Amino acid sequence: MKARPAAPSSEVVERAAALVGALRARAPRIHCITNSVAQAFTANVLLAAGAVPSMTTSPGEVGAFVKGCDALLVNLGTLDEERRAGIEVALAAADEAGRRFVLDPVFVDRSPARLSFARALAARGPAVIRLNDAEFGALAAGADERGDPSRLAERLRATIALTGARDLVADADRDVSLANGDPLMDKVTAMGCAGSALVAAALAIEPDPFLAAAGALVAFGVAGEIAARTSAGPGGFAVAILDALYRLNADDVRALARVSP
Amino acid sequence: MKARPAAPSSEVVERAAALVGALRARAPRIHCITNSVAQAFTANVLLAAGAVPSMTTSPGEVGAFVKGCDALLVNLGTLDEERRAGIEVALAAADEAGRRFVLDPVFVDRSPARLSFARALAARGPAVIRLNDAEFGALAAGADERGDPSRLAERLRATIALTGARDLVADADRDVSLANGDPLMDKVTAMGCAGSALVAAALAIEPDPFLAAAGALVAFGVAGEIAARTSAGPGGFAVAILDALYRLNADDVRALARVSP
Amino acid sequence: MKARPAAPSSEVVERAAALVGALRARAPRIHCITNSVAQAFTANVLLAAGAVPSMTTSPGEVGAFVKGCDALLVNLGTLDEERRAGIEVALAAADEAGRRFVLDPVFVDRSPARLSFARALAARGPAVIRLNDAEFGALAAGADERGDPSRLAERLRATIALTGARDLVADADRDVSLANGDPLMDKVTAMGCAGSALVAAALAIEPDPFLAAAGALVAFGVAGEIAARTSAGPGGFAVAILDALYRLNADDVRALARVSP
Repeated sequence: MKARPAAPSSEVVERAAALVGALRARAPRIHCITNSVAQAFTANVLLAAGAVPSMTTSPGEVGAFVKGCDALLVNLGTLDEERRAGIEVALAAADEAGRRFVLDPVFVDRSPARLSFARALAARGPAVIRLNDAEFGALAAGADERGDPSRLAERLRATIALTGARDLVADADRDVSLANGDPLMDKVTAMGCAGSALVAAALAIEPDPFLAAAGALVAFGVAGEIAARTSAGPGGFAVAILDALYRLNADDVRALARVSP
Repeated sequence: MKARPAAPSSEVVERAAALVGALRARAPRIHCITNSVAQAFTANVLLAAGAVPSMTTSPGEVGAFVKGCDALLVNLGTLDEERRAGIEVALAAADEAGRRFVLDPVFVDRSPARLSFARALAARGPAVIRLNDAEFGALAAGADERGDPSRLAERLRATIALTGARDLVADADRDVSLANGDPLMDKVTAMGCAGSALVAAALAIEPDPFLAAAGALVAFGVAGEIAARTSAGPGGFAVAILDALYRLNADDVRALARVSP
Repeated sequence: MKARPAAPSSEVVERAAALVGALRARAPRIHCITNSVAQAFTANVLLAAGAVPSMTTSPGEVGAFVKGCDALLVNLGTLDEERRAGIEVALAAADEAGRRFVLDPVFVDRSPARLSFARALAARGPAVIRLNDAEFGALAAGADERGDPSRLAERLRATIALTGARDLVADADRDVSLANGDPLMDKVTAMGCAGSALVAAALAIEPDPFLAAAGALVAFGVAGEIAARTSAGPGGFAVAILDALYRLNADDVRALARVSP
């Protein structure tokens, strides 16, 4: 990466710790245009964390939902015509109402049609783009961007949250590495999608998208570690991470967060 | 509320107690046009209680499913064009075959387009309308109806099942207050939708829509209380309420029901 | 049934035992066109077993997903216009790329439109058709086929996997009876759909469709029995079967498999 100041790790940890209580206290409304595989688990993650999800994709009514929400998630999994049209309406409404959005370009590495749609959306001003390595490799343009998420962040004026065994969060000026989480998170469908929804919930509360993304992913990873302690496999883990999010407090986050420059 | 006889609480309790065994013995087929967030959990609630769910929304085949079912649920969450068209076909088939339906006007308080569609459906003769406070406030017309669910029930000739911290079930002539349930029920997505499906299952067995709605909600609330005893949070609770429904018996219902005029 | 050699039971057991490790080692990509009720549970079953699911149904991109996958599942639940069009594109792509597919004709006994669509798909060369008794009765033509799955298998040149209290797997030349599983498997929505997806995963690894189908169903049934040991009802069971699949090993399969000619 090019030389630039790392975000102070302690600031990320404190933001993650504060986020947990703020979500419960303020119960932000998060509208999620997400794939049908992820809808129920995403809604349950948001509810467990204290947010209030809504999920319609219908072009005829998604505008009203977006205007009444506090932040928006646009996830491209199971992308159909209705969802494409709904996304257009939702982004127009978000723009008009001043709502920020998280883009989750699921599986753009697997479908050229989806990649070109994702590129168009990435140019529409997402506050955060949450994606995995394969998706990042597809979305980034050229070797420079592929080698350094902060360059993609700079071009798109967005925070990039690149999740995997370690998560990397970068904007044009700062980056941070997060080591929380558990390998079982890869064995439950929609875990990444639900993480993106939690970032959207954090955006409803935290003005700085970089701190919102990093804080939400730290809290999610800590919840995953707590859940893994009592899980025999991915079925029990998917249940336990909801309970861990529901019971998570600021002290857990401070004690378990692993954040480094 | 205007003065009128309360339903005998003991009758509601006995109906709820009888319902548990009758569902297992008769395994009614319940066709659910419901939102994609709620489909899996709703199907699992019906299966746990002994009913047999089907879920297609396709206009080309929903008519055949409705004619072969014992009762119908129409839930408006994630309302898209296909579901709108499917609802029309389903209601025509239900009318022709003499099947009754439950209307669940999810989020009508959040979208004017949805509210106007819900009002049209509410005039099509639902046996029961199950909704929460915000949805009731939107669907009711004028201060009189907003202040008294029995007035809305009277105008629509339907049973109104208004759920929340306490549930109120009212038709034009009777009302009853139900105090079962647990706050974790609000922290699991589709819990209300699944409750509506259980009311539809009760309609397949119980001729009186008022007793069907009240009985199903008592049984559901009792299952929720049993589930909450062993749940650390909403993840475990969503699992445990299925197990509780599956194991529920008439004595549990009689021992735990909290029904008052 | 007409007289013909039974498949050696020991071969089926060994194939089932080997499959468990092979899925984890090779992590095949399985593209699933499946109903919205089943999507999340199906994806979680595949992930627990070591496969990598994808789920889009959009005609504009399903071709790219199928070309990049190792086997395909076509499930007809909640069949809408988009899924019908997506299935056409997917089968054309599978044909072109040499990918095999499993057909799961959900509820063809309940809708004439669906039955006629399923008949057309059954003639398109599925490697395996997984279905229950009622669906088999609808799909089979005439009393001869209804009385003997091997005749339907012969006409369609497909393996028929007829699941129920006992599973029967037959092709034109062989058949085998499987007695694993637990009654709770009928009390969780999408359990059969997920079993079909596991057969598709086995097809990605095992060249012989008969052994793939039988092996996958043995492994799934054994996981079900392990899960039932610790389950109080269908909620806990749906969680425990994911954990059991995740932890299943070849010795468990050999010890518990109940396969007979």
